[in-house]
Amino acid sequence: MTLTGHMLIGQETVAGNREAIRGINPATNAVLEPSYAGGSAEHVEQACALAWTALDLYRETTLDARADFLDSIALEIEAFGDELIDRAMAETGLPRPRLMGERGRTCQQLRMFARTIRAGEWLDVRVDTAQPQRQPLPRPDLRQRQVPLGPVAVFGASNFPLAFSVAGGDTASAFAAGCPVIVKAHGAHPGTSELVGRAVARAVKACGLPEGVFSLLYGAGREVGIALVSDPRIKAVGFTGSRSGGLALIQAAQARPEPIPVYAEMSSINPVLLFPQALRNRGQALAEGFVASLTLGAGQLCTNPGLVIALKEPALDTFIAATAERIQRSPAQTMLTPGVFNAYESAVNALAENPGTDIAAIGQVGTGPNQCQAHVFVTEAVDFLADHQLQAEAFGAASVIVQCASCMEIRQVIDHLEGQLTATLHLEDEDLDQARALLPTLERKAGRLLVNGWPTGVEVSDAMVHGGPFPATSDSRTTSVGTAAILRFLRPLCYQDFPDSLLPTALKQANALQLRRLLNGQREAQSNDE
Amino acid sequence: MTLTGHMLIGQETVAGNREAIRGINPATNAVLEPSYAGGSAEHVEQACALAWTALDLYRETTLDARADFLDSIALEIEAFGDELIDRAMAETGLPRPRLMGERGRTCQQLRMFARTIRAGEWLDVRVDTAQPQRQPLPRPDLRQRQVPLGPVAVFGASNFPLAFSVAGGDTASAFAAGCPVIVKAHGAHPGTSELVGRAVARAVKACGLPEGVFSLLYGAGREVGIALVSDPRIKAVGFTGSRSGGLALIQAAQARPEPIPVYAEMSSINPVLLFPQALRNRGQALAEGFVASLTLGAGQLCTNPGLVIALKEPALDTFIAATAERIQRSPAQTMLTPGVFNAYESAVNALAENPGTDIAAIGQVGTGPNQCQAHVFVTEAVDFLADHQLQAEAFGAASVIVQCASCMEIRQVIDHLEGQLTATLHLEDEDLDQARALLPTLERKAGRLLVNGWPTGVEVSDAMVHGGPFPATSDSRTTSVGTAAILRFLRPLCYQDFPDSLLPTALKQANALQLRRLLNGQREAQSNDE
Repeated sequence: MTLTGHMLIGQETVAGNREAIRGINPATNAVLEPSYAGGSAEHVEQACALAWTALDLYRETTLDARADFLDSIALEIEAFGDELIDRAMAETGLPRPRLMGERGRTCQQLRMFARTIRAGEWLDVRVDTAQPQRQPLPRPDLRQRQVPLGPVAVFGASNFPLAFSVAGGDTASAFAAGCPVIVKAHGAHPGTSELVGRAVARAVKACGLPEGVFSLLYGAGREVGIALVSDPRIKAVGFTGSRSGGLALIQAAQARPEPIPVYAEMSSINPVLLFPQALRNRGQALAEGFVASLTLGAGQLCTNPGLVIALKEPALDTFIAATAERIQRSPAQTMLTPGVFNAYESAVNALAENPGTDIAAIGQVGTGPNQCQAHVFVTEAVDFLADHQLQAEAFGAASVIVQCASCMEIRQVIDHLEGQLTATLHLEDEDLDQARALLPTLERKAGRLLVNGWPTGVEVSDAMVHGGPFPATSDSRTTSVGTAAILRFLRPLCYQDFPDSLLPTALKQANALQLRRLLNGQREAQSNDE
Repeated sequence: MTLTGHMLIGQETVAGNREAIRGINPATNAVLEPSYAGGSAEHVEQACALAWTALDLYRETTLDARADFLDSIALEIEAFGDELIDRAMAETGLPRPRLMGERGRTCQQLRMFARTIRAGEWLDVRVDTAQPQRQPLPRPDLRQRQVPLGPVAVFGASNFPLAFSVAGGDTASAFAAGCPVIVKAHGAHPGTSELVGRAVARAVKACGLPEGVFSLLYGAGREVGIALVSDPRIKAVGFTGSRSGGLALIQAAQARPEPIPVYAEMSSINPVLLFPQALRNRGQALAEGFVASLTLGAGQLCTNPGLVIALKEPALDTFIAATAERIQRSPAQTMLTPGVFNAYESAVNALAENPGTDIAAIGQVGTGPNQCQAHVFVTEAVDFLADHQLQAEAFGAASVIVQCASCMEIRQVIDHLEGQLTATLHLEDEDLDQARALLPTLERKAGRLLVNGWPTGVEVSDAMVHGGPFPATSDSRTTSVGTAAILRFLRPLCYQDFPDSLLPTALKQANALQLRRLLNGQREAQSNDE
């Protein structure tokens, strides 16, 4: 398929009329064809008008019809075969196996939400039947279901050109909830975005849905994004990216006459606690696991282990030496974009020049442009506590090891941390009491806690939480990965004393969807009619 | 019991050192004893420090212990007997039967949350067991539960001195979620607040909970409130009151280094649609129901029917005439405070002077101070659409009837409305098609839709939604009444590969709480061990 360089507004292919963006191969800095002229406020207006028109039809599709749509998107994405992977490789510098895995994850995610839609638990149907004889006042018939918030604006991430982009978790969960979606393509992978956008548009058409269910816009600056978030027909925003980018969207969303929720996943350094006995028993294995996790994908993962915390004792020295030895051997890796590379260089330079840090090790020098050299720094707890800059995220393969003089200092360091996506504990049975004592503090700081694993690798499942207190995300009450992500785009609506014929299917007496409703305070064990 | 005029910081009775507030009997403007000296930022600091200390203990209480606490509060409130009702009557001007009913509702609400806590569904336990053999990567063991956000600041409402105040829905649901609560007492009923605050503090002590679980602060201006919302240990805010008050708290919450959610219920005019056949068949009965709902509690209810929408035809004239006749006979009622009365007077004067309105009827003149005369205005759809001021909430017994020339105009009027707590449809079978056509628009505007009823009267149950799109509330994703209110104060937390001994009880293998978990994608029909 030939890339057009155009936007998708519903089923229409539309050329932009603003400054263009182009994909860049970060391994060579070669500029890729075609160019993607940016959209204007008028294109945002068109896409929002279509989305608004589509809303009432799309949100009342049957569970099967909506699930079929998500399944169709997965099939359409897979139908591109190598073309999609090749383009994504060229635009991101990510290796083929990684992108094939990411495509699998993206399609699995769409199919998981299709199953979630069909199961219908997300409708959270609650029925309190009328009690006309109740004293002193009769009780009306009350029925609650969840309804979609409305059209959603999605801003993809650079680091997952498939799984957190055009048809990634935000889009899939918003579609699952019944929300039309308008995506602003990430400038780092415009061609990949076009291909996936076409897959979604084809699924919209094949499923006979109103075209406004999906649009894909491009834009070099912030014009399109801010116009999108400011449009009164947009009712929620999904974003994965930098803290400054997320905060700008939140500000725009709050400044609206009708403020709307923004689900922004922004920054996390994912502390890893190495407990004494674990360090003593398996310092080499920990160093190996740490370096593998730190350098995975050139460290360009939201859950990258950017902070290690441990008691300062000989076993930690051994760990640091083993880590340094591995880091020094670790090859440079191409970063996603020149911008990401430059930001990484600035961040590691700032850490290197910080009087509170020592460099433990630097990875190998690369040969092309945009090459990420891994960096590990060492600092003392007192220095870490004294300088907030030491917990700024350095997006890439950089990490800081904080040496603590006491358990009390470990607790202080954790208490001092901002909110995180993850926190990891490496421990042996002998460390359990110490870990248990720190657990309440860790529970307050993160969305996911791990024992004896590494935070990179985010399972797409029911129990996953990819979220956490600010600034890890803008809304700790939710997750952006896993089936619970659908809840972000829903709100409860109650129907009082409605005639059955006017009720939506999910709430009708017949319970045709065979849902386990909360009926007069009891969860139905299996579907039946009240 | 003698009222002390003091704050409650944990179990301590503390005298304020700032400008005092005093209860005022609105029926006489008599100032009530004692005076309540306001707290300062230092008192906020003390209460927050205690709440923070209490958090980790309180949030891990057993389900039974936490439920017992809520049941205890209800008993302690009831133990005051008439003393509480007498004081609330003196401070609010509300009649005894209404306050006795409200006390019943408040205690029922506490007991309902006690049952909700015990049932444990709110923990939303999800378990994905490990698949060590899975290719290409093993799946870890993942377990999710809901944990409380942290200490919550609650701002009570003037119009429900019991049910939406110190131990009202916000406090009860935050306690249920495991959050310590700091209440800023509403200045309109300080003595009622002290009594209920003591009831809560007694329950804290009787249940052996850490004292920081509850504090009650007073303050004349905004110092205490803003200090509370700005304190880093406060993690969420519940508020019921004016739009300006709610927006000020939201702004303070957003300006924090770590922004926090604010659940503000602010303003709603609760449109009522009268369909043609309903008007023709039962115009008199509709007028009777309308006036009863409009004047209930001097109209000082969030769900007061402040807007009526109907086709301009003879049956509407009959309804307006019948309404006017009843309004003219309706006695004046004492409003909650001189401030509420003055705001009402301003609002109805503005409506009276608006060139787009005619006065249909005014209620009887009262004899004492702060007497609310009911007002009904009539306007045309074109005027309503042209002037946003005509949909400003006039808190009190005032309503505007919008006469529409066509069904299209009815839809335009609804489309033009801001978000609402409720929308009501009065219809006969012959009106069903017209109602069905408007339903999608109404569903986008409100949190609760009613057929052939009146919006006043909010059932406390599982299926109730007391919420709605902005500005009805600041967060349409939630309800402040009913069991789902607990969800406002929770966030998901995932435990990956935790040894069983380190897991919280709800997630341990044994499933001692006998929860119906979502286990490997399937909802357990009944509790069992995986």
